[in-house]
Amino acid sequence: MRIAVDVMGGDLGCGAVIQGAKLALESIPAISELYLVGPEREIEAAMSKARLRDPRIRILHATDVLTMEDKPTDVLRKKKGCSMARAVELVKQGKADAVVSSGNTGGLLTASTVLLRRLQGVGRGAIAPVIPAPENEFVLIDAGADVDSTALHLVQFGIMGHVYSRDILGYKKPRIGILSNGTEDSKGTAVTLEAFRLLRQLDLNFVGNVEGHDLFNNRVEVVVCDGFVGNIVLKTCESLFNSVYSWLKAEMTKNAKRQIGALLVRSAFRPIVKRMHPDASGGALLLGLNGCVMKAHGSASERAFMNAIRIAAESVRHQINDRIREEISKAAELLDIKNLPEAQAK
Amino acid sequence: MRIAVDVMGGDLGCGAVIQGAKLALESIPAISELYLVGPEREIEAAMSKARLRDPRIRILHATDVLTMEDKPTDVLRKKKGCSMARAVELVKQGKADAVVSSGNTGGLLTASTVLLRRLQGVGRGAIAPVIPAPENEFVLIDAGADVDSTALHLVQFGIMGHVYSRDILGYKKPRIGILSNGTEDSKGTAVTLEAFRLLRQLDLNFVGNVEGHDLFNNRVEVVVCDGFVGNIVLKTCESLFNSVYSWLKAEMTKNAKRQIGALLVRSAFRPIVKRMHPDASGGALLLGLNGCVMKAHGSASERAFMNAIRIAAESVRHQINDRIREEISKAAELLDIKNLPEAQAK
Repeated sequence: MRIAVDVMGGDLGCGAVIQGAKLALESIPAISELYLVGPEREIEAAMSKARLRDPRIRILHATDVLTMEDKPTDVLRKKKGCSMARAVELVKQGKADAVVSSGNTGGLLTASTVLLRRLQGVGRGAIAPVIPAPENEFVLIDAGADVDSTALHLVQFGIMGHVYSRDILGYKKPRIGILSNGTEDSKGTAVTLEAFRLLRQLDLNFVGNVEGHDLFNNRVEVVVCDGFVGNIVLKTCESLFNSVYSWLKAEMTKNAKRQIGALLVRSAFRPIVKRMHPDASGGALLLGLNGCVMKAHGSASERAFMNAIRIAAESVRHQINDRIREEISKAAELLDIKNLPEAQAK
Repeated sequence: MRIAVDVMGGDLGCGAVIQGAKLALESIPAISELYLVGPEREIEAAMSKARLRDPRIRILHATDVLTMEDKPTDVLRKKKGCSMARAVELVKQGKADAVVSSGNTGGLLTASTVLLRRLQGVGRGAIAPVIPAPENEFVLIDAGADVDSTALHLVQFGIMGHVYSRDILGYKKPRIGILSNGTEDSKGTAVTLEAFRLLRQLDLNFVGNVEGHDLFNNRVEVVVCDGFVGNIVLKTCESLFNSVYSWLKAEMTKNAKRQIGALLVRSAFRPIVKRMHPDASGGALLLGLNGCVMKAHGSASERAFMNAIRIAAESVRHQINDRIREEISKAAELLDIKNLPEAQAK
């Protein structure tokens, strides 16, 4: 398979991306071509620093970079020659099967949606990060691609999350829940209640409403929500985890006694931080598009970037877009939805 | 001041409530009367067990209990003689200034809204827990009283949160933010964007949109959101904190070396758990009603219940309902809102 990597736009610069690409090339033999898209000289310098030499590498020169400060739409306007746009174009042109970028999320969404277009029958693309919990992991969908979703959008998020969880994460019958303000069937907004009614009619392992208390208690593998809610939940979790962790680290080094204790318990933190740290998943897939698009974390380390490439490769290998298209069409038949655009508006 | 306490409905039973009431009576001399509402015999048994004898205590007998399984509306129908309804009635009758209950949240909302009615000019009541962060604390409003709020509801939540944060928590100019999917002014749903436009016109320390990352980073003292979102955020935080904490405790006792280390660092956890634990605030005020209503945590310990009574007493002492009414009316003038019900519907 062929992967396009946007080397620019991440917080740690081109170097971390190239290191991540090196790790990916070493560990994923299925990659037949890997495009590095960005300023040629910087890429070559980073490659020689990383001692990366691999016949599968193709360099595609692009000078411009879409920064975090740029407007998302600039990716196809003011900066249409930027590394991100060029990397997505490789997928559009059929030269790559997947694209990975740690740049501006809105920009990647815009470029992907406009250049690749949505999968047939899909009303909206969605950002689908995998969130680790102590006993399982769950796909949070949508984590912020869009806001004010309709009930049918939510239903399709459930279907896409189902395919992702089943085919890539390996849960045979992923449990799907709608994130709500309580577990009772009657809880929710007008939109989530309608999505509940529809999801129940599909051939999925739909468990109904889940609430915040359920997320980290092994209740579901797919959490369906509007991008407004999902984005808030994702960032709140990151914020709470990081704040408490930093606070605890500070407390644990406050005096000599604690410092000694800290050395002795240090290993207890490792499995938790390793599992809960954003680097473990590396980023989030953008689902619902014609092509595999992986958004790596803005602050992705080399390990994170390698993981982002790995997930992109997995989504290609499992042809999850074909599976999503099939499941969406099956659902449309079951729900008797003939005219999608009209139904979406409801 | 006079406080009505519903002794039933909490997970730990009448005993913990009575113990909490004892602590409150000892530490809050301003309490002139404290009603204990529930089954007389149980109350007397718990009082004698707690060695609670205080001339300020009044017992109001009520046999029925609204359980967590009961429908909220049962509080005024099937179980209209229950301890919760009787406790709220004491406020309605002018016999108590505030009511505290750890029972069914929906039931308390229903009883309070129907019996006490909303403050003049207020479109919706809201649940307002105080969430501790490492460097400050913030009022999350609404944490789940209702869903599908209008922009004007959100504006009023901001005003109520402002008064609470200023008068009870002591922040001179509490920073108010709308919880959104990004900090840029353009981020949000149709409803939050309109609330943003309105809040900006008021004489408040409105800082604009805040995102999940900001919550625990000392950015705001009032977080405005729809009850659907607030409920999810609140429960997600509780769930993440408790899961990771339990996991860490399990890891830290896995072998002898870690157990010794755990003893040495134990004191490092104390300030964090003490601050982040739900018991610290004891519960959440229901704001926007004619009367002070405090929802104590369902699992409130005696310390939590004491804190719940303390906050209820503070809200009476600071007459925050009068302040809220004033601020709401000032805002209505500024925004030129004459017909509230009509404006609310927008």
